Amino acid sequence: MIRKKISPKPGDPAAGNGILSRRIFLEGMLAAGAAGAGASGAVAEPLTVQHWMKVPGAGFAGYGQPSRFEDKVVRFIPPSPNPATQGVGPARTPLHLLDGIITPSGLHFERSHSSIPDIDPDRHRLVIHGLVRRPLVFTLEALHRYPMQSRIAFIECAGNSQALNAPQAQPLGIAVTHGLLGCSEWTGVKLSTLLDEAGVDPSARWVIAEGADAAAMSRSIPLAKAMDDALVCLYQNGERVRPSNGYPVRLLVPGFEGNMNVKWLRRLKLTAGPAMTKDETSKYTILLKDEKAWQFVFPMEVKSVITRPAPGITLKGPGFYEISGLAWSGNGSIRQVEVSADGGRSWAPAALRGPILPKAPVRFRAPWQWNGGPAVLQSRATDDTSMVQPTRAAFAAERGLRGIYHYNAIASWRIDEKGEATNVYA
Amino acid sequence: MIRKKISPKPGDPAAGNGILSRRIFLEGMLAAGAAGAGASGAVAEPLTVQHWMKVPGAGFAGYGQPSRFEDKVVRFIPPSPNPATQGVGPARTPLHLLDGIITPSGLHFERSHSSIPDIDPDRHRLVIHGLVRRPLVFTLEALHRYPMQSRIAFIECAGNSQALNAPQAQPLGIAVTHGLLGCSEWTGVKLSTLLDEAGVDPSARWVIAEGADAAAMSRSIPLAKAMDDALVCLYQNGERVRPSNGYPVRLLVPGFEGNMNVKWLRRLKLTAGPAMTKDETSKYTILLKDEKAWQFVFPMEVKSVITRPAPGITLKGPGFYEISGLAWSGNGSIRQVEVSADGGRSWAPAALRGPILPKAPVRFRAPWQWNGGPAVLQSRATDDTSMVQPTRAAFAAERGLRGIYHYNAIASWRIDEKGEATNVYA
Repeated sequence: MIRKKISPKPGDPAAGNGILSRRIFLEGMLAAGAAGAGASGAVAEPLTVQHWMKVPGAGFAGYGQPSRFEDKVVRFIPPSPNPATQGVGPARTPLHLLDGIITPSGLHFERSHSSIPDIDPDRHRLVIHGLVRRPLVFTLEALHRYPMQSRIAFIECAGNSQALNAPQAQPLGIAVTHGLLGCSEWTGVKLSTLLDEAGVDPSARWVIAEGADAAAMSRSIPLAKAMDDALVCLYQNGERVRPSNGYPVRLLVPGFEGNMNVKWLRRLKLTAGPAMTKDETSKYTILLKDEKAWQFVFPMEVKSVITRPAPGITLKGPGFYEISGLAWSGNGSIRQVEVSADGGRSWAPAALRGPILPKAPVRFRAPWQWNGGPAVLQSRATDDTSMVQPTRAAFAAERGLRGIYHYNAIASWRIDEKGEATNVYA
Repeated sequence: MIRKKISPKPGDPAAGNGILSRRIFLEGMLAAGAAGAGASGAVAEPLTVQHWMKVPGAGFAGYGQPSRFEDKVVRFIPPSPNPATQGVGPARTPLHLLDGIITPSGLHFERSHSSIPDIDPDRHRLVIHGLVRRPLVFTLEALHRYPMQSRIAFIECAGNSQALNAPQAQPLGIAVTHGLLGCSEWTGVKLSTLLDEAGVDPSARWVIAEGADAAAMSRSIPLAKAMDDALVCLYQNGERVRPSNGYPVRLLVPGFEGNMNVKWLRRLKLTAGPAMTKDETSKYTILLKDEKAWQFVFPMEVKSVITRPAPGITLKGPGFYEISGLAWSGNGSIRQVEVSADGGRSWAPAALRGPILPKAPVRFRAPWQWNGGPAVLQSRATDDTSMVQPTRAAFAAERGLRGIYHYNAIASWRIDEKGEATNVYA
């Protein structure tokens, strides 16, 4: 008996407008199916010997930097009219110029409430006090003696993507729409280890975390989270935490909104109730459509974004492209990402590769044969709590569009006939 | 019936000279057992308000840098007597000042054979030719259209740790003994994808990879490895590969000795036999004790090293410390790491945390109660092929100590009564 082959071939479409099956990544069918992605078959010999092969190169540097040809790969910093507040506000990660899941520390987004303090680590102290048996003062040297843990985790500003609340889609780059997102390997001491040593009073329910910036940015964190997976971080991507990310010590509360990962951490006070600091009352509450507001919404909800193609990148003619992006959830791990090239009418699953870690981004990839006509690219993530990233319409129906925090709806990039990508609502 | 508790308590010793059970990491027994790791119980209030809380901080930078207080965290670069060859040789990673598994790109080790070329990516080409159906020339833009993969992988120079071949132990820092090791998240196109597109001739067995540095560093790589997991990398830790690590494109052959991960990749030639380049004949062959030599020993064998405490770090008085280090194997994943504080007489398993990935380092951690007396710290790794890191004596008995490559024996740090760590043979 001859078994009839009914499964689609890897080169077959998996969704409308040119989305191919992710199976071509596994089955090596790219060359046969969707190849010719820009390679030139011109005569390969003789090879050109460029001048940099004829002279010795540059010497070593103690601390290396990117190539001078990459000098446009920088954070997006809106101009500030006030010279006294050059470091107040956001500096955004250029996601469309990056790949992988790690954000280089030099490009990790920043959100600072009073610029970046220049902290001498020998004079910095971390204090734990309030409802504890014995208050403790830690030097950096003391913190270094405790057992540490490392984990790869994203941090997303609660205000990321708030520009997509505008009634009409604005012509914005992806750094502006999604660049308040970063991911590092963070290493530090479990907060529970330090709290155990201080001895938590049974009446304590909250931990007030305060930074050593001039704004004394501070947030109330549930004790349960502090005892679960919070880290007092000393290292970021292998080296000491960068000044713009909290040097010499920052708090990591995996999955919770960015500002709760308090930078320049100087104080942890245990209390019975939340402190109602300015940063959790005047800011970081979510205005709803019925004029009420949500307070203390901590985890960043499931979300994804296509980083290539994306606004800021122009495709050079029809043919094969990889659709590449990031998906993440503050509630757990990413289970699935789907992509669409026809504005959400049809979807195909993207490939997820590499370690899929809780509260860390995953890189998704999907093969796409662009026919040169208009297309609207979208991605839709599902996490392991079965939460699905909503459409913009569904998001608006639930919350309205007046709140500026925790916007996690599906983003849409329109590709026009010239290959240019634009932020649209679809 | 009362069940007798026979398992040791978490605070109990797990091996001689103060090694505690890794279970204290899991069971939160640190405070009860081995606490007081340097925290001060002094009155925590009033908190000192440092001057950096009283003034606005620094503004944003497009591309961020480490704190000025970390300016001694740099690669170790031996002085070169010849001004023409400032970038020839090694620049080593200061492992004792880092934590986690990612090496920050600015501190990733370098080994260059003719300094660091300043390559214009718009003029750089990658050529695939030789035993292929059609030779291909790739621009960087063309490479960007192919499907990519990301993986976290170590690169270790074949010559790492050769200083430990000296007959007497030298007073060397860990950057000198083990600093030719780095780990990045690498992202690029599978080499098999590009080779499939060129069409490999059935007679091809090897791929000659050549760099665009003035030394034209080149190595022969078995076709089987090229088709298995080799990556043509465009990104390192999220951003474009750094110049010192091969900008704009480097080869990654996971687990294979460092120099085969050819930097500044310009040419891949398919051949029936190896090319016997200068870099695989005059260099990178392993001289054995019987005057014969091994050639084409590709994977870096299972290895580990304690990075804290380590030479360059001084302990400040007896008490609790975490022993932290890295373990890796070019043949697979790390299955187990054991630590000893008594020069290898007794061993206890260390904790392995975070994703344990093939051909990537894993961070190991063990709790240690230092009594203030002499100690000799060692670590011993086992990989998932059941290879065990050898003692120095066993290594010497098998290979002798005249070869300068692939030294993977157990390292020993002696801690003296002053808390200073020294490289010893034990």
